[in-house]
Amino acid sequence: MSFVVQPQAMHFDGPLALRSGASISGYTLAYETYGALNAARSNAVLVCHALNASHHVAGVYEGQPGSEGWWDNMVGPGKPLDTDRFFVIGINNLGSCFGSTGPADIDPATGRSRGADFPVVTVEDWVEAQALLLDRLGITRLAAVMGGSLGGMQALSWPIQYPDRVAHAVVIASAPNLNAENIAFNEVARRAIVTDPDFHGGHFYEHGTVPKRGLRIARMIGHITYLSDDVMNTRFGRELRDAVAYKYTTQDVEFQIESYLRYQGDKFSEYFDANTYLLITRALDYFDPAAAYGGRLADALAGCQTRFLLASFTTDWRFAPARSREIVRALLDNRLDVSYAEIDAPHGHDAFLLDDPRYLNLVRAYFGRVAAEVGAA
Amino acid sequence: MSFVVQPQAMHFDGPLALRSGASISGYTLAYETYGALNAARSNAVLVCHALNASHHVAGVYEGQPGSEGWWDNMVGPGKPLDTDRFFVIGINNLGSCFGSTGPADIDPATGRSRGADFPVVTVEDWVEAQALLLDRLGITRLAAVMGGSLGGMQALSWPIQYPDRVAHAVVIASAPNLNAENIAFNEVARRAIVTDPDFHGGHFYEHGTVPKRGLRIARMIGHITYLSDDVMNTRFGRELRDAVAYKYTTQDVEFQIESYLRYQGDKFSEYFDANTYLLITRALDYFDPAAAYGGRLADALAGCQTRFLLASFTTDWRFAPARSREIVRALLDNRLDVSYAEIDAPHGHDAFLLDDPRYLNLVRAYFGRVAAEVGAA
Repeated sequence: MSFVVQPQAMHFDGPLALRSGASISGYTLAYETYGALNAARSNAVLVCHALNASHHVAGVYEGQPGSEGWWDNMVGPGKPLDTDRFFVIGINNLGSCFGSTGPADIDPATGRSRGADFPVVTVEDWVEAQALLLDRLGITRLAAVMGGSLGGMQALSWPIQYPDRVAHAVVIASAPNLNAENIAFNEVARRAIVTDPDFHGGHFYEHGTVPKRGLRIARMIGHITYLSDDVMNTRFGRELRDAVAYKYTTQDVEFQIESYLRYQGDKFSEYFDANTYLLITRALDYFDPAAAYGGRLADALAGCQTRFLLASFTTDWRFAPARSREIVRALLDNRLDVSYAEIDAPHGHDAFLLDDPRYLNLVRAYFGRVAAEVGAA
Repeated sequence: MSFVVQPQAMHFDGPLALRSGASISGYTLAYETYGALNAARSNAVLVCHALNASHHVAGVYEGQPGSEGWWDNMVGPGKPLDTDRFFVIGINNLGSCFGSTGPADIDPATGRSRGADFPVVTVEDWVEAQALLLDRLGITRLAAVMGGSLGGMQALSWPIQYPDRVAHAVVIASAPNLNAENIAFNEVARRAIVTDPDFHGGHFYEHGTVPKRGLRIARMIGHITYLSDDVMNTRFGRELRDAVAYKYTTQDVEFQIESYLRYQGDKFSEYFDANTYLLITRALDYFDPAAAYGGRLADALAGCQTRFLLASFTTDWRFAPARSREIVRALLDNRLDVSYAEIDAPHGHDAFLLDDPRYLNLVRAYFGRVAAEVGAA
């Protein structure tokens, strides 16, 4: 049984200026905190979430069995990121659909959901919004920022945007930008959603519909890219669902892998907002801190003082180890302090959420060092 | 300018018994032949096609510029498979949509398109149908059977089904079966088609609709798996279509790769039959000659006398070189004559259709040997 936590919400009048040139006023961020901020306010760790996760990083909600946070194996009392030592903050990103203001919410100005008119948000915008929330919590400097995948991009962007506000950045299974194949998968998922007749140009709320067909397809595609070839073959292989013989059908389920993907797609389409999916995949597409420096990531990181831990997983083909090594190289070019581990794990991109002891111990050891620095050891 | 060819059609009363237990009567196969059958009828080469190709392997149609066959760089006068030496046959597979009887065609028994009621066809069924067509052409033994990808599966199945009828099999960029990831991609594509409201359970012909949304998504997914990460990065990378700055849009095209995929999807949805797509991806899923032998491919190939050429491409992640090596190993276990080349090419699965000189020279050299054997050198 994990520890009990409560979500909170903080309202901001704004306006928050976004990278797109648009701005957003009167928004709310859902967040959670675990552990206690020390007197020096020096033990705060921000955990950033990826595509379909939220501020609910760890712990459970009272009376809700199975409500463990998405990184409950990593964060909590006695866990690698130990909430007995650190004050941990999780924030649902602006534009998401788990409590922070997003496309589904009613815009007070119009009395309608913004839907597809919700402004495009970027990783940099999220970092700005997170910084404003930390200001309100009285946290001027983070002991660390940490995230995996898209969360890792935020952890990478923090030291670029706020070099003085973050001592350590822990960037797991991430990349300095998306490559063409990553963008391609995002685009197919977006097309599936946008071309679903129930999408209604992104204003489906008013039509009482949800583009579930598109969301299902988007999630199925995503899921394939989260898993390695190896783990798919080990878990599913060519196993038939009914384990007798081929039924010879084009539309019904024949193989276990089909059943699994359909289930994942169905489940996702019940809770995830379609416009949020578009926004978050675009935030992924747009992230590219090196772009403003002629593609030189080292130049983007030039002003950083932050120390880094990076980890990647050998079978991750979504954000392959080579992508993490690009970041490591750019950090070393700046003579920054960086630890890097390439973890031999069969689980593909999903590995960053799983219980690999070498991985968890690596993070534990790193945060042990951070704890000693901030007097929380 | 390529040589001019003409498609032909051959009608069969049937019934053709299918692996599913169903059968089909009164069907037509579209085919083309190039070159001349020699007096000994010993120089025939059957070329099998993959998912979206056809019997139009090589040459052009009179008065139709740009109508080159899908393997025109491989097959023709003076080409690696030289039609001055060989009598080459291309057959559109049963269930396809380029002239052979398929789901879109009117069933004379009902006066309606069979649509989703068209029986499920397998690689083995196609080989049976091809053998019957060859019977009618008076060809009892093939000098060679050749194919890439799904075409390679047919080339692999020929010696298993007809060990006495094929001297050589040329199996390019293929696999002994699909793995879980391959099936997963097929399933997502099928779901996109089947859940398109214009699909109408596979009877869209009667509704005057075409499930183009689904076909577009299916093709976009397929296309990603045909290309390597490398070639995508080289050709598209993160290049913007309008090459100025981000437009910050979730629904419009921003990157070149998006534009390219949308174009491929649109084009495909204009000409390809949705039910054929389901059938052919299922034929891929079902192919697994080792299954009847407890998963031992070597046992499936035990009766073969055929000699083999296999080739794979280093960056092909759809049917990776390891999949070809499984076939090579099973052949060697049977002490069969096998040549195998792993070609270092950046183009992914698509490489089997492209002009890589090492690859084309490899096939040329192999067919030179076959030509000498049949007295066509």
